[in-house]
Amino acid sequence: MAADPRFHPAGSPLTLAEAAAIAGGELRGGDPATRIAGVGPLDAAGGAEISFLDNRRYAGQLAATRAAAVVLAADFAERLPAGVAAIVTGQPYLGFARIAARLHPAPPPRPGIHPSAVVDPGARLGEGCEVGPLAVIGAGAEIGPGCVIGPHAVVGEGVVLGEGCRIGAHASLSHCIAARFVVVHPGARIGQEGFGFAVTPEGRFETVPQLGRVILEDFVEVGANSCVDRGSQGDTVLGAGTRLDNLVQIGHNVRTGRGCVIVAQVGIAGSATLGNGVQMGGQSGLTGHASIGDRVRVGAQAGVMNDVPAGTDVVGSPAWPAKDTLRAMAALRRLGQKPGRG
Amino acid sequence: MAADPRFHPAGSPLTLAEAAAIAGGELRGGDPATRIAGVGPLDAAGGAEISFLDNRRYAGQLAATRAAAVVLAADFAERLPAGVAAIVTGQPYLGFARIAARLHPAPPPRPGIHPSAVVDPGARLGEGCEVGPLAVIGAGAEIGPGCVIGPHAVVGEGVVLGEGCRIGAHASLSHCIAARFVVVHPGARIGQEGFGFAVTPEGRFETVPQLGRVILEDFVEVGANSCVDRGSQGDTVLGAGTRLDNLVQIGHNVRTGRGCVIVAQVGIAGSATLGNGVQMGGQSGLTGHASIGDRVRVGAQAGVMNDVPAGTDVVGSPAWPAKDTLRAMAALRRLGQKPGRG
Amino acid sequence: MAADPRFHPAGSPLTLAEAAAIAGGELRGGDPATRIAGVGPLDAAGGAEISFLDNRRYAGQLAATRAAAVVLAADFAERLPAGVAAIVTGQPYLGFARIAARLHPAPPPRPGIHPSAVVDPGARLGEGCEVGPLAVIGAGAEIGPGCVIGPHAVVGEGVVLGEGCRIGAHASLSHCIAARFVVVHPGARIGQEGFGFAVTPEGRFETVPQLGRVILEDFVEVGANSCVDRGSQGDTVLGAGTRLDNLVQIGHNVRTGRGCVIVAQVGIAGSATLGNGVQMGGQSGLTGHASIGDRVRVGAQAGVMNDVPAGTDVVGSPAWPAKDTLRAMAALRRLGQKPGRG
Repeated sequence: MAADPRFHPAGSPLTLAEAAAIAGGELRGGDPATRIAGVGPLDAAGGAEISFLDNRRYAGQLAATRAAAVVLAADFAERLPAGVAAIVTGQPYLGFARIAARLHPAPPPRPGIHPSAVVDPGARLGEGCEVGPLAVIGAGAEIGPGCVIGPHAVVGEGVVLGEGCRIGAHASLSHCIAARFVVVHPGARIGQEGFGFAVTPEGRFETVPQLGRVILEDFVEVGANSCVDRGSQGDTVLGAGTRLDNLVQIGHNVRTGRGCVIVAQVGIAGSATLGNGVQMGGQSGLTGHASIGDRVRVGAQAGVMNDVPAGTDVVGSPAWPAKDTLRAMAALRRLGQKPGRG
Repeated sequence: MAADPRFHPAGSPLTLAEAAAIAGGELRGGDPATRIAGVGPLDAAGGAEISFLDNRRYAGQLAATRAAAVVLAADFAERLPAGVAAIVTGQPYLGFARIAARLHPAPPPRPGIHPSAVVDPGARLGEGCEVGPLAVIGAGAEIGPGCVIGPHAVVGEGVVLGEGCRIGAHASLSHCIAARFVVVHPGARIGQEGFGFAVTPEGRFETVPQLGRVILEDFVEVGANSCVDRGSQGDTVLGAGTRLDNLVQIGHNVRTGRGCVIVAQVGIAGSATLGNGVQMGGQSGLTGHASIGDRVRVGAQAGVMNDVPAGTDVVGSPAWPAKDTLRAMAALRRLGQKPGRG
Repeated sequence: MAADPRFHPAGSPLTLAEAAAIAGGELRGGDPATRIAGVGPLDAAGGAEISFLDNRRYAGQLAATRAAAVVLAADFAERLPAGVAAIVTGQPYLGFARIAARLHPAPPPRPGIHPSAVVDPGARLGEGCEVGPLAVIGAGAEIGPGCVIGPHAVVGEGVVLGEGCRIGAHASLSHCIAARFVVVHPGARIGQEGFGFAVTPEGRFETVPQLGRVILEDFVEVGANSCVDRGSQGDTVLGAGTRLDNLVQIGHNVRTGRGCVIVAQVGIAGSATLGNGVQMGGQSGLTGHASIGDRVRVGAQAGVMNDVPAGTDVVGSPAWPAKDTLRAMAALRRLGQKPGRG
């Protein structure tokens, strides 16, 4: 099953030999001159397509695949049927990604400002930017070269975007400085007021002015409908390369290190800090003002209520180190199976 | 309390006899010729309105209701005060829904394209479509007859909508094929890139091209601000009649069967599959690549980390079969009450 | 570090004496005539700025602060270094908020309707309203004086907004009556259909018409990308002063009391009711039709499955009173540490 050309225009085809080189892999079996036009999943790829195996859960599909070639680790290469070439590499997913990106390159910007867009005369746009229908760019905004501003996106007053940023449909940015190659997916909200108020002696809430910004470093990605509130005084910062999935909440003053991975529906409360390379599983949460160290991994749905030292895996709500929790869960399960004991 | 006519224009009134027939119920007490103009809750409906009882939690309100008639099960009919008619049926909520839909029919499309909408000359629209203010319809999009495209909605390049679809305000669709009578509520994001990247040996993330689509089968509904990512190679598929509530996350390559019910803030991670008639409670999650069978019911906030066989109820995080979990919770509660034992 | 003037224009400076008076605090040390131009966090404020200490977690930063003055409780005043004035008050966060609001007042509306906005001739706007680029205001809408309607916001047909409301970019409102000084942040969805359907004997879903409204009382705030569904028959009501953070889900017919605080990613299912002053922590949930009393506090990620009496703290999923749960968690932890016992 090839990619639908209505949505994914094909680039130039590759030979198997070229594909193997792009993947940094070794071609085993197959004619190096075979032309590859696309990619497909193991169970649906046809004879001019390349597939991959990364998750061993799908290894059972190797025997029946009809792909031209499969990018995979050496251990699995012998399971391929006759006539299917192997591209053997220690990083099959990365190799496959690079082949796919060559066969279906991301569409380049189509430079120009749609006549329906509302661009303030005081905004500055770099060369080669694409501004979609009904986009709004405010006074004083500075947009670097080669940016794509999607339909209905709002880039607020004074917002700065570096080179090559892509802002999705309906996204809104205010009070934000983004570096280079930042990607904001549709409907994301960046730079709005955080949740800050003081309580009067009479019990009323008074809004605390939110006087900071959002800083998005190089290559940051923010998923669809995610929210990143601006700092209350200092800045909210997403470190270089950090990726947020969809529907993520980032409170005011949060700071993440480089290369963090924040899966869908995670919530990080105000003033929390993350080290480099932190991974937070889907629907997990981190309490306000807590600090978690480099390479911490937080399990899905976990609730982190305290600081976590670097390199620790935590799971559960409230989150504990994974080993303790798994033992406790096993004990709890035994309790559940033997209701007569206590 | 009648529906506010500013928002809910009334249709033609019904007689009690007509209402009973529409509900498929038996009229007991009351004059069949009584005219009914609207509907209302038990505790607020007035004398020209119909109410219903479906959840026995509210049975205590029957004695004091002033509705003209109440749609309910036979067991409860005798609790109505004198002068309030009963429409007795085994499915009171369904019967009520049908009466309400006759009294307050959904507004039909107002055919025409608002002058502020931006419709690409290469898009095709069927007969009788309504395109709202500032909607954007991209090149090559094909929109079936009788569709309603709300204000600010974006229907991307090449997107296909079948007959009678309704797209809410600010929703965005790309890389998507929708069948007939699909409803997308305001702010939903459909067809954007999924969360796919490979890690280089140096620890950088490289985006994996997301080359699939989203397929929405007949009568699918997607709630407000929910997100459905497109497939990475194959498709993300929501089976016929499946309904998503608000703020739901559907990862790339997810496939659901027919008639699934996905409550608000659920997250379904990439490549998971659901059978027919699956129900997932609010804020529950399903891990990537897992498969859950027909008619599985997942409790609110549960975290499903493994495959679940058809017909099973699971609760908890991590999710276990409900019976085991409830016993374990009871045991845990005893532990909490007797801290001296362990 | 002063606020970035691109985003936060400065108001008039204050003297230290004026600042202390605004904060309702006592000035200790420092020259009452010192001019204050801005605010900043303890670890970054410079010599013309005021900071505050409210969370004792940050008390260690007092000794090294270079702020002109710090708003804090009496207990901490002696920890300030020489040359840093104290503004001593029992409510340091509130005092600080008031100073910050004077130094950086919220920008007033810029009266006028942007030429790209689409305002139905049948809509009525009060004096001094600002209507941003590409906003849409439907027929019959009534907008009070001094409202700000952000870029791309949609105020649907018949919607009523009282004096001084602020509607963020891309927000959509339908079937809604908002009182005075209501704030709706970007991308919030208010008034759409709730998740209501009846099941036919054949297993199909039939939509139940959603015939109610959303009522937002004075000073309500709704966070970015949050969703508030309209009532199915009666109304969904957020009581005066209630604040919703981002990505919150409010189902149809929910009613909250006054001054509730609903943190990010909370889900409140249909027909639930909250008393006055209820606090729900991040990612917590409340099941449908449940009722929780005045001043109940629900812990982060808790799942409330039943009614909760006034004044109770609950945590866990399912939620129990906090004391029981904490004991149970401690017992469970011991189980996890001693797997040989049961």
